Amino acid sequence: LRKENIMTDELRVNSDRMFAAFNELASIGATEAGGVHRPTFSEGHLAARQWFQEEAQQSGLEFRMDGAGNHSAVLVGTTDNALTLLLGSHLDSVPDGGRFDGALGVIAALEVLKTIQENGVHHKFRLEAIDFTDEEGTLVGLLGSAALTGHLHLELLQNPRGGRENLIEGMMRAGLSEESIWSARRPKESLAGYLELHIEQGKRLERSGIQIGVVYANVGISSYRLSFIGRADHAGSTLMQDRLDASLGASSFTLAAREVVMKEFPNCVVNVGNMQFTPGAFNIVPARVDVSLEFRSAEDSEFDRLDTALLALAYTEAKRFDLDFKADFRGRHKPTPMSDSVQRAFVESCDALGLTHTSLVSGAGHDGQSFAGICPMGMIFVPSVNGTSHSPYEFTKWEDCVNGANVLLQAVLRLAK
Amino acid sequence: LRKENIMTDELRVNSDRMFAAFNELASIGATEAGGVHRPTFSEGHLAARQWFQEEAQQSGLEFRMDGAGNHSAVLVGTTDNALTLLLGSHLDSVPDGGRFDGALGVIAALEVLKTIQENGVHHKFRLEAIDFTDEEGTLVGLLGSAALTGHLHLELLQNPRGGRENLIEGMMRAGLSEESIWSARRPKESLAGYLELHIEQGKRLERSGIQIGVVYANVGISSYRLSFIGRADHAGSTLMQDRLDASLGASSFTLAAREVVMKEFPNCVVNVGNMQFTPGAFNIVPARVDVSLEFRSAEDSEFDRLDTALLALAYTEAKRFDLDFKADFRGRHKPTPMSDSVQRAFVESCDALGLTHTSLVSGAGHDGQSFAGICPMGMIFVPSVNGTSHSPYEFTKWEDCVNGANVLLQAVLRLAK
Repeated sequence: LRKENIMTDELRVNSDRMFAAFNELASIGATEAGGVHRPTFSEGHLAARQWFQEEAQQSGLEFRMDGAGNHSAVLVGTTDNALTLLLGSHLDSVPDGGRFDGALGVIAALEVLKTIQENGVHHKFRLEAIDFTDEEGTLVGLLGSAALTGHLHLELLQNPRGGRENLIEGMMRAGLSEESIWSARRPKESLAGYLELHIEQGKRLERSGIQIGVVYANVGISSYRLSFIGRADHAGSTLMQDRLDASLGASSFTLAAREVVMKEFPNCVVNVGNMQFTPGAFNIVPARVDVSLEFRSAEDSEFDRLDTALLALAYTEAKRFDLDFKADFRGRHKPTPMSDSVQRAFVESCDALGLTHTSLVSGAGHDGQSFAGICPMGMIFVPSVNGTSHSPYEFTKWEDCVNGANVLLQAVLRLAK
Repeated sequence: LRKENIMTDELRVNSDRMFAAFNELASIGATEAGGVHRPTFSEGHLAARQWFQEEAQQSGLEFRMDGAGNHSAVLVGTTDNALTLLLGSHLDSVPDGGRFDGALGVIAALEVLKTIQENGVHHKFRLEAIDFTDEEGTLVGLLGSAALTGHLHLELLQNPRGGRENLIEGMMRAGLSEESIWSARRPKESLAGYLELHIEQGKRLERSGIQIGVVYANVGISSYRLSFIGRADHAGSTLMQDRLDASLGASSFTLAAREVVMKEFPNCVVNVGNMQFTPGAFNIVPARVDVSLEFRSAEDSEFDRLDTALLALAYTEAKRFDLDFKADFRGRHKPTPMSDSVQRAFVESCDALGLTHTSLVSGAGHDGQSFAGICPMGMIFVPSVNGTSHSPYEFTKWEDCVNGANVLLQAVLRLAK
């Protein structure tokens, strides 16, 4: 046993093999700008899915597809009735996206299984590298992981953000149906955990020169449509002091919201992603401005305080310009803490590998969220150059990709020992 | 001669007859809310035009229509080769507009001619009450007056703000054609002047309790599309301090532009009538915001200083948030001063009638602008209740309407003596 410990501590992924696989995958749905275009069930995405199946089978892993279209490569456990430890990410991309987002996590998961398999290491779990369907939300968002964990609701399928027709047509192209999706659900008793390697999509690691980010929580996301309501008036004959100009409330709120978050909620973010002016003409004082507001926090009580602070601020700014105000709630995902046990396994692995690491929050949504309350889960980040993401210019140094894969490998070995 | 002077000084319009005509006209294209819906060459507008023709003919005035669709009721002069003094306004309305904007000026012009005609007053000018085509700009804007004064350009007809198909179809419905428009032009030597009575469409008269506003200038109007350009970023994983958020420049400019105009240009107005966000999603930091900016000034040098101040401000606000900035010039009408001789005739008339009056600027565009450099012109305003305009709730007390018509009558008598 002691000999095996030494052996597994020294185990590393095969960087060259992983690099070859990464580049093969990056050539599928490749764009001229150097990224990939693989929206869910598009031609490029279907080709990438086909590649995954062949890669799994050629590696001697067991290929499996469930009713939600999730593709898996399985390394059966060395004990009977083994629980499943999932390692995964996604092969779909945003339109005109990058080569690393999602793909790196899938490639690393496959490489971890190959490394464990070829070294004949004992592992108590059934190990499964999984490519989740529609993480990015071309159709629904986190579709595959929500189906697997039982978090999918009928309403999400009936009114999907990508449009119902696109969902049904896309599923048909992948040989799936609305009914088949429900069969993807697995009993939570069968799951040992979920681990994911992903690019950071931010600048924190790069700026601090730290190699690995161990995620301690996925942020909660809340969104509102805020309406500042004044009065349409002739923009020539109405004196400035006689106007009820909706643009003033919307503008003032936009600036003040940023100030409040930066000063009072330094761990949170806020975004005014859109404003719609009514009637929206050069020569008419805006009667109404609808503001698309989104904000994120990693911690429940802070999230609630932020919600209260921003809505109070919007009301105050509206009244400052004698405007009416309405807030239309648009949705909320609670913050999702990562499991302590998985974070510990990642930290110990970084230390064993001599990699610098820090604990951080994930500002983006990820499939890990779907596993909240289902089984232990955790994520690690590797640095994104310039923080760029969802762009053809998305880039992570290969050395960092390999570091991430080795941390994933070592964490699996620690958990599955 | 002295006896006639006394007689004409005491001449007044027939309030009851004018009231009956006003109400008849207001019933054409009437809306449930109490306004009128008479966009150029709509069913309601064509019916109002028909009413004008019948009204002119029944009053024993000569009816005339030119190639631009301008309708006139003419009282031939009492001297040979008389120059034409035009009195007018327009019968078209904005969609779902009010009963007074335009209509009052046409009704008053007709009533002035009837009064002069029935009293057999000597007048050296050919007097013409005119209803100008498309003042409000459903199709082109100031179309009829621009055609009459030779200010129409082919480009305006080829790329009209209401759409080219609508222009051609509308003209056909009125029995006009694109070719006929050009024939409406009159030699400027034939014109003695242009006088118009209009509602103020603002609150200055009502607030100061003054009965008549003598317009000294039509404001100049300038418009730009300002672009604040940052960078699209993930609104979750990008820290607040790492963003190049275009909404900040646009919002900050909107607030600052209002401050600057109210403090440093108290006679001017500015409007941010629209903002367009790109990409405009809840979860993406705005990469670009395009701002529709319009500002107005009554005086040339102030207009130029305002232009410089606002563009410098926009640049400063963009740089404050590290944004790029572009200004796309969208058009400019110079300020149009009214003729001193016509203003004097209005002022003397007010004094003779015992009406309080003040000199003010017109913040809205009017057909009078078309007469700049062509012949003497002038306008008077009567109070708008609450300053409301372009709305079914547009209202002016009938007493004020009659006051305006009497000032118009007295000014005509003074000028045509």
